[in-house]
Amino acid sequence: MPVNPYPQPPADEVDLVEVLRALADPVRLRIVARLTDGEYHPCGVEEYGLEIHKSTLSHHFKTLREAGVTATLVRGRNHGVRLRRDELETRFPGVLDSIVAAAGGLS
Amino acid sequence: MPVNPYPQPPADEVDLVEVLRALADPVRLRIVARLTDGEYHPCGVEEYGLEIHKSTLSHHFKTLREAGVTATLVRGRNHGVRLRRDELETRFPGVLDSIVAAAGGLS
Repeated sequence: MPVNPYPQPPADEVDLVEVLRALADPVRLRIVARLTDGEYHPCGVEEYGLEIHKSTLSHHFKTLREAGVTATLVRGRNHGVRLRRDELETRFPGVLDSIVAAAGGLS
Repeated sequence: MPVNPYPQPPADEVDLVEVLRALADPVRLRIVARLTDGEYHPCGVEEYGLEIHKSTLSHHFKTLREAGVTATLVRGRNHGVRLRRDELETRFPGVLDSIVAAAGGLS
């Protein structure tokens, strides 16, 4: 059985401090704001309106995923990323939505 | 006029990323949870049930204050610290309370 190249913590092991550290960055807040619909989104720079290098963006995705904020899906050569919004809302009610709203990502 | 030795950002200049960075620490979350009544509290280690050095605690207070999370009051040789809860609630609705609740500091 292949090792999952994109491991993420199970919902009940997601740590609040790690989530806050992951969200405490302007680029990652922007990514998260883009993902609030809960759907899978492409991992390309153009999706997020960011002028940063692809490898820098990959690092941000890794930080978000390892903190439990996002989930990554691999289909062939394509990667998709989605917010773990429901799981986070259950574990830390109001935290993600209030932060995203404060960042201007939600109306 | 003396320079304020404990400067803090005005409410409308408090930055969300700085607030999240300040809160993304187990010791600082514990301090903040202790301060949720909005009153001034002593700055001593014993107030927070923390087994850390006084200078380490001072560093944590500095981080919280500079991010705009707390305000420091000096009366003679005594220092007091309080949460800027109302100002933060106005600027970033729900953020502080949901985080403190998630940290177990509010019922």
